[in-house]
Amino acid sequence: MYRVAAIGGDGIGPEILDEGKKVLDAAGERYGFDIDWTDFDIGAERYLETGVLVTEEELKEISGYPAIYFGSIGDERVKPGILEKGILLKMRFSFDEYVNLRPIRLLHGIQSPLVGKGPEDIDFVVVRENTEDFYVGIGSRFRQSEKKELEVVRDLYSVKFGLDVESDAEEIAYQIGVLSREGCRRVMEYAFDLAERRQRRVASVDKANVLSDVYGLWREVFSEVEGRHPGVATELTFVDAVTMWFVKNPEWFDVVVTPNMFGDIVTDLGAMIQGGLGLAPGGNINPTGTSMFEPIHGSAPKYRGLGVANPIATIWAGALLLDYLGEHEAAEGVVEAIEGTIRDGVVTRDLGGAAKTADVGDHVAALLRG
Amino acid sequence: MYRVAAIGGDGIGPEILDEGKKVLDAAGERYGFDIDWTDFDIGAERYLETGVLVTEEELKEISGYPAIYFGSIGDERVKPGILEKGILLKMRFSFDEYVNLRPIRLLHGIQSPLVGKGPEDIDFVVVRENTEDFYVGIGSRFRQSEKKELEVVRDLYSVKFGLDVESDAEEIAYQIGVLSREGCRRVMEYAFDLAERRQRRVASVDKANVLSDVYGLWREVFSEVEGRHPGVATELTFVDAVTMWFVKNPEWFDVVVTPNMFGDIVTDLGAMIQGGLGLAPGGNINPTGTSMFEPIHGSAPKYRGLGVANPIATIWAGALLLDYLGEHEAAEGVVEAIEGTIRDGVVTRDLGGAAKTADVGDHVAALLRG
Ligand SMILES: CC(C)[C@H](C(=O)O)[C@@H](O)C(=O)O
Ligand SMILES: CC(C)[C@H](C(=O)O)[C@@H](O)C(=O)O
Repeated sequence: MYRVAAIGGDGIGPEILDEGKKVLDAAGERYGFDIDWTDFDIGAERYLETGVLVTEEELKEISGYPAIYFGSIGDERVKPGILEKGILLKMRFSFDEYVNLRPIRLLHGIQSPLVGKGPEDIDFVVVRENTEDFYVGIGSRFRQSEKKELEVVRDLYSVKFGLDVESDAEEIAYQIGVLSREGCRRVMEYAFDLAERRQRRVASVDKANVLSDVYGLWREVFSEVEGRHPGVATELTFVDAVTMWFVKNPEWFDVVVTPNMFGDIVTDLGAMIQGGLGLAPGGNINPTGTSMFEPIHGSAPKYRGLGVANPIATIWAGALLLDYLGEHEAAEGVVEAIEGTIRDGVVTRDLGGAAKTADVGDHVAALLRG
Repeated sequence: MYRVAAIGGDGIGPEILDEGKKVLDAAGERYGFDIDWTDFDIGAERYLETGVLVTEEELKEISGYPAIYFGSIGDERVKPGILEKGILLKMRFSFDEYVNLRPIRLLHGIQSPLVGKGPEDIDFVVVRENTEDFYVGIGSRFRQSEKKELEVVRDLYSVKFGLDVESDAEEIAYQIGVLSREGCRRVMEYAFDLAERRQRRVASVDKANVLSDVYGLWREVFSEVEGRHPGVATELTFVDAVTMWFVKNPEWFDVVVTPNMFGDIVTDLGAMIQGGLGLAPGGNINPTGTSMFEPIHGSAPKYRGLGVANPIATIWAGALLLDYLGEHEAAEGVVEAIEGTIRDGVVTRDLGGAAKTADVGDHVAALLRG
């Protein structure tokens, strides 16, 4: 028996999460476990009514669960950033889910948009750092009228950047990214451990030739960590080049470890080469705490309630959740049932089919029950 | 008669620049102008011998030229960042080349790696801001042993990020990005002006939902600038989604305006969808100063001197240079001659051909001479 917190969220979130829960329950029947779901009403609707994003009490309560199954957040009535920072990033940070695990794998039966690339070419995992970098939310604005604010930071870049804030009429904004040695170390150790169970290759992504302060530290730690894993082949890459190689040579990759922001960018590209956002799952993992599993796509408000959303990303995220709980066989079973469903042609219109959201969930669940 | 500064640089830089100069000279014969080249010996070789990257005197001298024709820099014997920051970025910043103009266009005869996309689908221009953002080179490291350093910045993020630098044994690094209102305004105005001469569409790229300080300002300025260009249709996008659309729907784009770092990333992806780095040119433009034109690829040291490098990106950058100088007809003529050369099958091995670097330059020049 596992206790799992469920957060449907906004837009298509609740409907795709329903399919995910349906499939995980079916997997439980088949592989002999039970999931006890607790639903939490967190999202745009409540925020718009009450101004509440997520409370300290809720965070405390959820921290008692091993896992969260998450739909999606985002609503056209709320300014960009509010829900993302106030709910999604808030939970990633609060539960210290320092690994964002994103498999990039072309399932059998799915056509990649890349010429000549098949399932044998596209099968790697991105391990994205999930609690540091430019996601720490530190920054501000300087205006002439606010001269006293943060004097030292201002002096710092007036000197280096040659901007005279005192006399410039323009506004200037800054944003700070932070990496810590321990923050780099733990996510890299996770990536190397994973590689040791796969093809024993780790590629690191950074932009140390320009953002040399944060990514200089990143490279320093990478070389320490690789020293502890002599059986793993490594490569240091720049983020700009990585976007090219994802398109040209995805078969080069096994495990990719990346700082937070570049991870955000390259995993969306990864989702596309594996057939689209409707197919891309993610896990926000704290190996010794509360972890959260979600499709990497957003809430697609315009499709809400139409029953056309593709639930595969969410169902696959459910497989990652089962794997995290130690139900490895069930996790594999779910992914096989997804592939079976695609083979049977029960797919939504983003994949060229005519199935509804619930048809897909029903079919995956039926295949699991056998 | 135009005076142009030529910097071959490192690796394959000098050989591809030779082809570019050859073609521009041929264009001069055909369209009735002369280019007076002045070569500058700037690059890794000199740096390794003398420790000099680029001197203030050189910068001063080059600032007297309307344009620089640049090969590439980068050498395996020099630590990443030194040459990039000390030469390439130094010149972009010193000459205030605030527009990095990168056409993403699939030439006729080139196969895109994207299924079902042809020249009619891939034809847009990225206008990358080139002097601000995370490229300002501000950052540092905190160690326990350096407690006095930058007290206020440290306090700033100890509070917000919850890091106790005093007692943490780990090292922490930070990196600061800066955007100014005027910096955003001028590059956006350039993008809208360009769109008015094209399909009248501008997409802005940012990550305002997370890096809301710098990209909040970016969006604020964007909405002011779009107000001054009522005939142009606009779209605000997030950088992660943009990487997907470049792959799935490149035909959506006309002009893309982006902050510096995201521009770096998406233009490498753009280079790939237009057939590879061997084909992607860039211009670093100060509309009223000294502008610099270069292939967007690096110095590929392992191919140096082999005569196998593809000079098309450099030759195309030469076309951008001519366009900048006001020789619009000649610029178009060069691009047509490149397409003619591809049609004639005179291409290097990255494009599946057997031609040498100089064969390609000779053929483009011959087509131009007619
Ligand atoms: C919604 C947004 C804050 C989020 C991110 O940037 O991490 C999303 O893009 C993702 O990748 O999960
Ligand atoms: C070499 C590097 C500093 C440069 C950049 O990041 O701008 C390059 O990638 C480019 O895009 O011109």
